[in-house]
Amino acid sequence: EHIELLSERIPEKDMQVRARKFYEFLNMRRSLRFYSTDPIPHGVLEDCIRTAGTAPSGAHKQPWTFAIVRGKEERARIRELVEKEEKINYDRRMKKSWVNDVAVLTGEGADKRLYGSGAPKKPYLTDAPALVVLFKQVHGVDSDGKRTDNYYVQESCGIATGMFIAALHNVGLATLTSTPMGAGKAIGDLLGRPTYEKVFLLLPVGYPAKDATVPYRDAQSLRKPDTELFISK
Amino acid sequence: EHIELLSERIPEKDMQVRARKFYEFLNMRRSLRFYSTDPIPHGVLEDCIRTAGTAPSGAHKQPWTFAIVRGKEERARIRELVEKEEKINYDRRMKKSWVNDVAVLTGEGADKRLYGSGAPKKPYLTDAPALVVLFKQVHGVDSDGKRTDNYYVQESCGIATGMFIAALHNVGLATLTSTPMGAGKAIGDLLGRPTYEKVFLLLPVGYPAKDATVPYRDAQSLRKPDTELFISK
Ligand SMILES: Cc1cc2nc3c(=O)[nH]c(=O)nc-3n(C[C@H](O)[C@H](O)[C@H](O)COP(=O)(O)O)c2cc1C
Ligand SMILES: Cc1cc2nc3c(=O)[nH]c(=O)nc-3n(C[C@H](O)[C@H](O)[C@H](O)COP(=O)(O)O)c2cc1C
Repeated sequence: EHIELLSERIPEKDMQVRARKFYEFLNMRRSLRFYSTDPIPHGVLEDCIRTAGTAPSGAHKQPWTFAIVRGKEERARIRELVEKEEKINYDRRMKKSWVNDVAVLTGEGADKRLYGSGAPKKPYLTDAPALVVLFKQVHGVDSDGKRTDNYYVQESCGIATGMFIAALHNVGLATLTSTPMGAGKAIGDLLGRPTYEKVFLLLPVGYPAKDATVPYRDAQSLRKPDTELFISK
Repeated sequence: EHIELLSERIPEKDMQVRARKFYEFLNMRRSLRFYSTDPIPHGVLEDCIRTAGTAPSGAHKQPWTFAIVRGKEERARIRELVEKEEKINYDRRMKKSWVNDVAVLTGEGADKRLYGSGAPKKPYLTDAPALVVLFKQVHGVDSDGKRTDNYYVQESCGIATGMFIAALHNVGLATLTSTPMGAGKAIGDLLGRPTYEKVFLLLPVGYPAKDATVPYRDAQSLRKPDTELFISK
C-alpha cells in the first residue's frame, strides 16, 4: 500500500540556475485581455489541463471539472451573460473603493476597448479561441448517487489553476484569471453542469492579439519587493 | 498607462512537445511526508517563492506573505503545536468519514512512521530543513495604518501555491501541501505575524529521504481520467 518514492537529485548549481530561470520566465507572465482569434494547436490546451489535474487536493478528491468552450455561439452567450452582470456589479454590487481598485484594469482607466458608455466590455470572451471554465465540485457523488464530501475545495482548485497558468505560459499561450461575478449559475446551466459544480474561474486562452496592451507597471509595481514577499526565521 | 505587450509565438510542433513534457514532468510530483535533513542550496527556496509571487491576484493586491522557517527550535515548536491539534482533529473535530478518507495518507492506514498510539505523527515538520508557512492577508494596511480591502484572497493564494509547488518540483525539491487545522493562530503568533494574516498552508520543503514512501496509486488512481477531468463544448 505504501511504496518507495524514487527520486534523483539535481546538482546544486543546476538547481540554482533552474530556480532562477523558472522565476524569470514566469515573471514575464501578464494577464491578457486582448486575444488573436487564431486557434490553439491540437492537443495543447488539453495537455495544459492535464497538467492542472496533477495538482494536490484535499484527500485526493480532485474536486474540479474543466469545461473547454470553443463553440462560437456558446462564447457569445457567455460574453453576453458576463457583460450584463458586470454592469450591475460596477453600478451596484461593488463598493466604490473596489471599482477604484480595478479602474485601470477594467474600469474607467482601462484600455478604451475594455470600457465604454459607462460599462465594462469583455471582447476577450469572443476573440479568444477557447474559454476554459473551471468548476469546483462543492461535494462529490458516489456510484450509488450518494453525496460524498470534498475537502479544501477552494485551495485545491486554486492550486490547480496555478499549475494551469504556468503550463499555458510555458507554451506561449496567454490567459486571464477572471471571476464572472453573478453569472456563475447561468454559465453552469449553459454548459450542462450539475448544481454541485460552481464556477470557480473563467479563463480565456489564446495567443496575444497583435495590438494587445497591458497596464503599465515599473519594476516596483510589477511584483512587491522581497521584504514584503517573505520573511526568514 | 497601457503599453503594448511584446510576445513571440513558439512553433506549433514545439508547443505540442512542450505542453506534453511539462505535463509528464509535473505528473511525477507526489506529496512527500519523509524528508532528508540536508539543507536546500543557497537561494533556491527564495527563487521558488519569487516564482509564486508572480501569480495573478485580485486587483493585483498580492495578498500573501511567505514565512521561511529554518530555525530548529521554531520547527520543533510548530511540530508540537500541529501534532497536539491534530490529535484533537482526529478524535473530535473531523467526521468519521473524513478520518476514513485520509486514513491511508495520514491515519491508521498510513506508513507506520506517520501514525502511532492513536495519533498522527508529523516527523516531516522537524526533518525537512525548511518549513514555508503561507499566510493569506485577509485585508491590507495602507501607509497611514488604515485598513484596505483585498479581493479573491483565497483564490489568489491558491494560484500562488500552485506556482510555488511547480517551481519546487522543477528543481527536484519536494513539498507537502498541509493544513494545520486548529494551530493557525499559534503559528502566526510564533512567527510574529499580524492578526490580519491567517495561515493558508504549511509546506515543508526539502529533498526526499532515502527511505521515503508514498501511498501506492496505479495509473487509474493517480489522476482521474480525461472524461472526468474535462468536457468540450
Ligand atoms: C489544500 C490541501 C490540504 C492538504 N492537507 C493535507 C494535510 O493536512 N496533511 C497531509 O498529509 N496531506 C495533505 N494534503 C495532501 C493531499 O493528501 C495530497 O495532495 C493528495 O493525497 C494527492 O496526492 P499527491 O499530492 O501525492 O498527488 C493536502 C492537499 C491540499 C491540496
Ligand atoms: C482570483 C482572481 C480574480 C480576478 N478577476 C479578474 C476579473 O474578473 N477581471 C479582470 O480583468 N482581471 C481579473 N484578475 C486579474 C488581475 O487583475 C491581475 O492578475 C492583476 O492585475 C495582476 O496582473 P498580472 O496578472 O498581469 O500580473 C483576477 C485575478 C485573480 C487572481
